[in-house]
Amino acid sequence: MGEFGLINLIRSNITRYENFRRTPWQEVIVGIGDDAAAWQGDNHLQLATTDTLVQDIHFNLDVINWDELGWKALAVNLSDIAAMGGIPKYALLALALPGELEVEDISKFTKGMLHLARELRVAIVGGNVATAPNVIITVTIIGCSESEVILKRSTASPGDQIAVTGYLGLSAAALEMFKGKTISDPKLQNVLRQAHFRPMPKVEEGQLLVKQGVKTAIDISDGLIADLDHICEFSKVNAKIKIEQVPVHPVVIKNFPNYQELALSGGEDYELLFTADEATIARVKQTLNCPVTVIGDIIEEKLPRRVTVADSEGNIIPYKKMGWEHF
Amino acid sequence: MGEFGLINLIRSNITRYENFRRTPWQEVIVGIGDDAAAWQGDNHLQLATTDTLVQDIHFNLDVINWDELGWKALAVNLSDIAAMGGIPKYALLALALPGELEVEDISKFTKGMLHLARELRVAIVGGNVATAPNVIITVTIIGCSESEVILKRSTASPGDQIAVTGYLGLSAAALEMFKGKTISDPKLQNVLRQAHFRPMPKVEEGQLLVKQGVKTAIDISDGLIADLDHICEFSKVNAKIKIEQVPVHPVVIKNFPNYQELALSGGEDYELLFTADEATIARVKQTLNCPVTVIGDIIEEKLPRRVTVADSEGNIIPYKKMGWEHF
Repeated sequence: MGEFGLINLIRSNITRYENFRRTPWQEVIVGIGDDAAAWQGDNHLQLATTDTLVQDIHFNLDVINWDELGWKALAVNLSDIAAMGGIPKYALLALALPGELEVEDISKFTKGMLHLARELRVAIVGGNVATAPNVIITVTIIGCSESEVILKRSTASPGDQIAVTGYLGLSAAALEMFKGKTISDPKLQNVLRQAHFRPMPKVEEGQLLVKQGVKTAIDISDGLIADLDHICEFSKVNAKIKIEQVPVHPVVIKNFPNYQELALSGGEDYELLFTADEATIARVKQTLNCPVTVIGDIIEEKLPRRVTVADSEGNIIPYKKMGWEHF
Repeated sequence: MGEFGLINLIRSNITRYENFRRTPWQEVIVGIGDDAAAWQGDNHLQLATTDTLVQDIHFNLDVINWDELGWKALAVNLSDIAAMGGIPKYALLALALPGELEVEDISKFTKGMLHLARELRVAIVGGNVATAPNVIITVTIIGCSESEVILKRSTASPGDQIAVTGYLGLSAAALEMFKGKTISDPKLQNVLRQAHFRPMPKVEEGQLLVKQGVKTAIDISDGLIADLDHICEFSKVNAKIKIEQVPVHPVVIKNFPNYQELALSGGEDYELLFTADEATIARVKQTLNCPVTVIGDIIEEKLPRRVTVADSEGNIIPYKKMGWEHF
């Protein structure tokens, strides 16, 4: 059925029940399916998101350090708030752990998480610990929005440009290194490792997108094509990417012959992928403190393939990998 | 180190960082350690809690049905909001599942959860699914409080009476049945099963406690003695229970010779355990739609044993089991 099939199943079950509308369903503005849920609070929109990292599925304790794991578990969740243009405020940590873990490891984990929490002004206010055969970390973030507008997946329109913050491919390149590809330069090793284990969620950038009038965004966790496909699915549009314009990180281009695949399908870059009209994107380029690159256009829906990738001469390039899908 | 030792470790790590006070730490009213976290929202106190159920630690798929599992995963979390006197509003569901599960099972799970969600007016607004070797369910609830007062663990005073809602022991008795104890009456089988798998969190009762002036409460998840011990630890007091006054459920008394142990140490009853002065408890008894029983008194702190259990003649009864501790 796949991860996304399962989400759709749960959503359809819940939507059926939503017909029995009673408070607080009425206040819900974004339910299951977007980067975060949103509802009308007393004065502000409230946001919440949760994400789980599972040992040997999402991380390998032979490779990642505990402080990196703490950072990353928080980062992937903060990135979902960033992708809504929200302000993250409170975090809850649910840890399932084997009994035999070292105290030192848990302290490192907490420290890694707090390091990022301080950086982005998030308070860790509660949680839970339980025994489990392997390490499973679920973080929940609660935040709010200063604006009445939040960044959704469902608002892309034909005519929109597609843009992305920063550079892609570093995180997937790091995975290749962990899997055995030789990288001899220790500096490069470190750059790749940081990108994969200590991604910096684009929280401020998400808020600036909202201020500049952007309405549609997602964070790149599953991979550029897969995440753009989510936007297309929810917005009922198609997307056309020009591969030459995809901002692959220079060190990935230099060291990885398959750099385009890494940037298109690798995932876990935690950059923001967004769409808006040309004038809005021009304003965004002037406002954000990171590179913003236009990589293609939103066009009318025309199934079955929602996202197409074209070379510099406009020829469609076939691709296989659609980014992470955990099932 | 144990579950509670681990929580203390994480709390102390975080408290150290809290010195670098920046928004939103300043708004936090209850941090790690109580049933739920609380912070000052725009107009109301906001509450959040998270709890995880792990396959083969907290439930056994050979015994529990998927719809019961959905109900229970939500119920244990709602009970934490009840224990703060709060109003639960939004739920997030993080599911980690083996790939080979049946669609039918997931639908049943969702249905069970929605059944309770409707009953208590909670909207399921988001979540996450991930692959894992076994089933791990983390639910997060976000709620609020109509009052500026919330029920805490840290506010019990010498002179307070200790009281409990409802009857204890049914859930632990059910566990004995699942483990092989013969119960021949199918009606009784069903009563026990419902108590263990479909506990009804005392959400309305928690809110009524606040209205009547109660300040101290916890829900009975770990067991009466263990949870009373949490109150004593956080309030720096001792507690004395009169065993004859503990409201053991009649069918447990009738069918289980070890009924007192089940009621004192069994856990998972999800009743509310609270303390207040005599006049307040008298008002509570008149207000709540469920039995309220005074079971003992809060007294001055005198280590090492914080909770003592006395027989009808005032003699201290030794006990061993301290309720659930998952590590």
